[in-house]
Amino acid sequence: MPLKFYGMTKRVAYQGIRGSFSSMAARAMAQEPFEPVETSRFREIFEHVAAGRADLGILPIENALAGSVHENYDLLGEFQLSIVAEHYLPVELHLVAPVGAELVGVRQVSSHPKALEQCSKFLEERPQIAKISSSDTAGAAQEVARLNDTSMAAIASEEAACEQGLQILARSIQNHGMNATRFVAVRAAPNTTSAANKCSLLFTLPHQPGSLARILTAIADANGNVTKIESRPITGKPFEYGFYIDVQAASEISSVARAVECLASSSRVLGLYEAAAPLF
Amino acid sequence: MPLKFYGMTKRVAYQGIRGSFSSMAARAMAQEPFEPVETSRFREIFEHVAAGRADLGILPIENALAGSVHENYDLLGEFQLSIVAEHYLPVELHLVAPVGAELVGVRQVSSHPKALEQCSKFLEERPQIAKISSSDTAGAAQEVARLNDTSMAAIASEEAACEQGLQILARSIQNHGMNATRFVAVRAAPNTTSAANKCSLLFTLPHQPGSLARILTAIADANGNVTKIESRPITGKPFEYGFYIDVQAASEISSVARAVECLASSSRVLGLYEAAAPLF
Repeated sequence: MPLKFYGMTKRVAYQGIRGSFSSMAARAMAQEPFEPVETSRFREIFEHVAAGRADLGILPIENALAGSVHENYDLLGEFQLSIVAEHYLPVELHLVAPVGAELVGVRQVSSHPKALEQCSKFLEERPQIAKISSSDTAGAAQEVARLNDTSMAAIASEEAACEQGLQILARSIQNHGMNATRFVAVRAAPNTTSAANKCSLLFTLPHQPGSLARILTAIADANGNVTKIESRPITGKPFEYGFYIDVQAASEISSVARAVECLASSSRVLGLYEAAAPLF
Repeated sequence: MPLKFYGMTKRVAYQGIRGSFSSMAARAMAQEPFEPVETSRFREIFEHVAAGRADLGILPIENALAGSVHENYDLLGEFQLSIVAEHYLPVELHLVAPVGAELVGVRQVSSHPKALEQCSKFLEERPQIAKISSSDTAGAAQEVARLNDTSMAAIASEEAACEQGLQILARSIQNHGMNATRFVAVRAAPNTTSAANKCSLLFTLPHQPGSLARILTAIADANGNVTKIESRPITGKPFEYGFYIDVQAASEISSVARAVECLASSSRVLGLYEAAAPLF
């Protein structure tokens, strides 16, 4: 998978601290060394990029096991930023704890709610372990290292364990062996690359038979291949439906975007960018 | 919204205890008094119904704010049960705590991860409150009542607060005022009602331009209106995509299901049932 080159990009905002999956995605996506801008909330990433305090924001957008990160889709709709790249990051989750800890002695585990959800089978088999939600996996590992209590563990990456001097008590505990998170990079200005062959769109349609079929036929006529589609009820508008859609095309991706814009009640191009290869 | 009548249904399985949103959905959906079969995991609901230990299972399938409950879609694909009804339950989440507690003194809150996610704005503004994941909202309220510590709160329904003798410290703290969860009822045998005007389907398609457009055009030609669609990557099959879809029709919903069955690589009808009215 080719890494992206961003020219003058210097400051990259992402959620969490070093060792978080977002920090790993940031390093994979920003080819050059960069100044990290660490945040505790996704909204802050958008605020930093919109205000020019960061050049690029890195966002998890969907996970193979846990599905879409709806909060980030909502923020993409709210802020006028553009997706300029995507990246699939393999996600392996480990149970990590201070040196000297043993699995049988663990009584509490902290991690991001999505990470706890992705390890639900492992945790359901161990009901004696209380689950604590934290804002990111690496931050949970940092807190476990700070408290240095062998009954307390975190679910985090191997990198976070190394970074915090923790040992791995149980390796790769996510529900399925193959797990990946798709990240996107957002910037204040849209892509100018001519290599774009994928686009992300938000649009709304009247709730009528055939309205979605017409849009998808127009996309197919423009040689677009839908790689993701998701409907979303619009609060307060029971007769309209919102959609997230990703479309890939061999060429001329902008004609796909125009086809959607012509047929939807309302639409917004979230970005035109080069498709990355899925991992599995 | 008309309540459903299930004839001989006696035992109804759902996740959580009395006061859980699932228990409230069960009462709304099973018109007659029933014997509750309480479980701590969704998988157990499927196991109980498949083995005949329960006549009906009640499952949350999607929430207006947090999106689809992927685990239940996966279980619907795994077990050979049928959706026989749907119901939209309004969801209001409250911060509840023992009598004598004050909001400023709360240091820990426990609830289901989806409930914590739906109250993320309220909780982000109060970083001093640690978030504990529990398997259901009503169980979290029960545990808070048992410990009777005024620094510990739960996020749960008003019904759960009443049931456990807890007070409401902060009312309706979910991110948006209008929130609802869609529940479905599953049974071992498919519906025989002629009133069915909605169907839920799982299907896979080759990852080719136009394959989804053809299916949706066939659905529209059969007068079907897509009320939900979601793509799902299939682990280990990078060139195929899976879809969940719900379709509503003025009449002859079975012809919609047949149209999908003819065009998909593989498909499964999860159920034919009577559509309930969305709340908002």
